[in-house]
Amino acid sequence: MTQEKRSAAATAAAARILDAATAAFAELGFHGTSTRDIAARAGMSPAAIYVHHRSKEELLYTISLSGHRRVLDAIREASAAGITPTDRLERVARSFGTWHAEGHVRARVVDYEMGALTAAHQEDVAAVRRDIGTVHRSIIEAGVATGEFAVADPSMTSVSIISLGVDIARWYRPEKAWTTAQVVAHYRDTVLRIVGAAPRS
Amino acid sequence: MTQEKRSAAATAAAARILDAATAAFAELGFHGTSTRDIAARAGMSPAAIYVHHRSKEELLYTISLSGHRRVLDAIREASAAGITPTDRLERVARSFGTWHAEGHVRARVVDYEMGALTAAHQEDVAAVRRDIGTVHRSIIEAGVATGEFAVADPSMTSVSIISLGVDIARWYRPEKAWTTAQVVAHYRDTVLRIVGAAPRS
Repeated sequence: MTQEKRSAAATAAAARILDAATAAFAELGFHGTSTRDIAARAGMSPAAIYVHHRSKEELLYTISLSGHRRVLDAIREASAAGITPTDRLERVARSFGTWHAEGHVRARVVDYEMGALTAAHQEDVAAVRRDIGTVHRSIIEAGVATGEFAVADPSMTSVSIISLGVDIARWYRPEKAWTTAQVVAHYRDTVLRIVGAAPRS
Repeated sequence: MTQEKRSAAATAAAARILDAATAAFAELGFHGTSTRDIAARAGMSPAAIYVHHRSKEELLYTISLSGHRRVLDAIREASAAGITPTDRLERVARSFGTWHAEGHVRARVVDYEMGALTAAHQEDVAAVRRDIGTVHRSIIEAGVATGEFAVADPSMTSVSIISLGVDIARWYRPEKAWTTAQVVAHYRDTVLRIVGAAPRS
């Protein structure tokens, strides 16, 4: 293999391990998953895992941090695409709801296994979570300023909106009654109610 | 010991094991917890655990089913104490929110570890969950009938309200910024907004 091909193969192997670890953590929890479980799902030897990732905790950290960063990027982009606070909040809700409904397996790991990270790694993830909170809160504050929203405590309301989005990953299964689109639309409408936005036609 | 004292001691030991198992499952997840972990927390030998409970799964089943039944009883009582649908929903939200905020450790086991139960045990718990959904949905339907609530899909709205309550157990820690009373009051207000209840003075 050329250097380039070797590098591409290593990247593909590392990605396969991350996918296997995500599936295992979602099903068994971090503490219930062994490196052997991850290796088996990735079709590799346990030793091969350590070529690409230093430890099981390092794998969880990579999944959790990149997951949080991707959500943050998505909602920042959604927020920037809107004009009014209502429009921005609606786009953010659609983006945030879609992430948790479509990516419910990954989201269960990203949102529910944080306690298993080292303190330093938890702090890195918490910093991204604070930014996710800030995106929501700043839109709510902007909507209160324009009079579009009626909210007494933008911090608590921001936590509620995020909470309702995150919890989709716990209960939603696409094979059940509702489509992703239905769940996301209902989430978006609920978010607008929570901030007291004027009902739209 | 008399028969009566022996029986009381056995009940106390069984309860101590359930508390230890709840704490261990909340911290390590079901799959990450060994019977040895539970025994150590209860201050017993692993063999003593099996005197009172057949298996680790049986312990989770007992915790999960009794937890769900207690929530169901609490919200039924709250609903019965109210007169109008708004009043009933407010009481149910306060009861449901308090359960998840005050009992956040137990609720994390009750609500998040269900996937580890056997299929038959999952079905028993799911039946209680359906009843919890029915309590919420019937109040919402009653409020739509009286014109107090404006809700297009009572089933989805019921899921959202339950979801927002359950997720309190994931994010809320009483040692942080907000008291239980603040979180419950905000949850109750948010629930009333979600159903489109008329704002109160």
